[in-house]
Amino acid sequence: MVEAAAGAARPVGGTVAILGLGLVGGSLARDLHALGWRVLGHDRDAPTLDAAVREGCVRVALGSDLAGIEDADLVVVAVPVGEVPRVLRDVALRPGASVVTDVASTKRSVLAAAEAAGLSHRFVGAHPLAGDHRSGWSASRCGLFRGAAVFLCPARGAGPAVIQRAVALWRAVGAEPRVSDAAEHDRLMAWVSHLPQAAASALALALARSGLAAKALGPGGRDTTRLAASSPGVWTDILLDNADEVGAALAALEVSVADLRRSLERGDREGLVEALEAARRWKEAT
Amino acid sequence: MVEAAAGAARPVGGTVAILGLGLVGGSLARDLHALGWRVLGHDRDAPTLDAAVREGCVRVALGSDLAGIEDADLVVVAVPVGEVPRVLRDVALRPGASVVTDVASTKRSVLAAAEAAGLSHRFVGAHPLAGDHRSGWSASRCGLFRGAAVFLCPARGAGPAVIQRAVALWRAVGAEPRVSDAAEHDRLMAWVSHLPQAAASALALALARSGLAAKALGPGGRDTTRLAASSPGVWTDILLDNADEVGAALAALEVSVADLRRSLERGDREGLVEALEAARRWKEAT
Repeated sequence: MVEAAAGAARPVGGTVAILGLGLVGGSLARDLHALGWRVLGHDRDAPTLDAAVREGCVRVALGSDLAGIEDADLVVVAVPVGEVPRVLRDVALRPGASVVTDVASTKRSVLAAAEAAGLSHRFVGAHPLAGDHRSGWSASRCGLFRGAAVFLCPARGAGPAVIQRAVALWRAVGAEPRVSDAAEHDRLMAWVSHLPQAAASALALALARSGLAAKALGPGGRDTTRLAASSPGVWTDILLDNADEVGAALAALEVSVADLRRSLERGDREGLVEALEAARRWKEAT
Repeated sequence: MVEAAAGAARPVGGTVAILGLGLVGGSLARDLHALGWRVLGHDRDAPTLDAAVREGCVRVALGSDLAGIEDADLVVVAVPVGEVPRVLRDVALRPGASVVTDVASTKRSVLAAAEAAGLSHRFVGAHPLAGDHRSGWSASRCGLFRGAAVFLCPARGAGPAVIQRAVALWRAVGAEPRVSDAAEHDRLMAWVSHLPQAAASALALALARSGLAAKALGPGGRDTTRLAASSPGVWTDILLDNADEVGAALAALEVSVADLRRSLERGDREGLVEALEAARRWKEAT
């Protein structure tokens, strides 16, 4: 009855199904609900799904069979990248949604999975550059995407109308979508996102092995290792999924660390100043 | 006349000479002036010294011969570590100050320089863990040391009364001094301060060499490379001064970066999760 009444007063944005209610999926559910969308939601963690329904952000809880997802115009797959192929296959089993998208940090494998699942004509991969080292529904919040860049990588069969729906979705929550090639996206992310993440973990690992406590860090060291607090499971998936590009970036980091170490060993003041200057120039260029 | 009147109303903390009015020296001048100390100051950069006098934080500008420094009970050498030996020799040429201290990030070479200059009985090296990537008088501010740890490394000849004066100085500006051995200090700093600094620069250097722009970084990458904006000159001095310990720490970082890269190349999910977990456990331990 309540459902019927809500249906009569047509929601502003339509009906969206969000599968996975972690930091990104949960924040999207909060924003779209606040904007008047009708949000269907699923999460394999029952307390998460309960909380999302109790807080009113998710109107209809979907079971693991996704029955009812047919009502959604749009499906957002917001699970870790390793689980995306399975969820896309489940989504493909049901008719409905004119547009299917995701939020994973890598795009080549996701597009391949969408095409393998037969979703090519209605899939646009998405990667919002938002979030931090926290995770889960409890970390989700309204406004997470405001001003954030979002890469959109359409599947081969996705036409302009489908792409436009994905663009409109992200604009609605204040993000700045840009259409990109999946391979270019993955290469860029290897350097500007995955490498800093791996570097922070590698630094924390070296410090852990030294036997010193993290509380001995000053503010600079705390910032430099902040990303090491991120979810190991989520990041293992991402790094493995982009292993070729991330491996090349890590090899380049080994070279630059070794360059600094050798300059130190040689007492090469000029070489050191030059390296630190190049790093600063890059950091400060706008 | 003004000087005489000020002298009649005895300042709370006494008279301090601060040599070098950058971020650390300048902030100390601001705090001590606000606490009622009479601050004598010198900086080889004339506009800096002028600004400090004009803003009233420095009561008396000292020339490069340091004439007048005899009035100070306490001398703080706040120049980059590479210049500390020369300034300590200049200070030793004049009588006065019962306590001489510094603020450099390394302590073995500074203590050696103090002892070589004949200051052993009145020198306590100090290293406040405060500041950020900015530098110079314009970055200095009141309250910089509030809650900050300060390592104090007394010279061989410094007695308890001298150490107590240094402790009182740092407590006055809200810092938390702790007495430490210089070699232990330098080893600790190599890991918790100099290594994160060098790691941030090495990461920025690798990114610079990749040809990507810093503005492509997300918030995580910006934090991880923040320290790369630090002064190359200041940090070259620090890293070279602690080259043996920093070299060992950098070699350990090369190992942990290579470990991650090889796990990726092998597709070793278990090894990757384990490494990222160890990094996170360390980061989150309190």
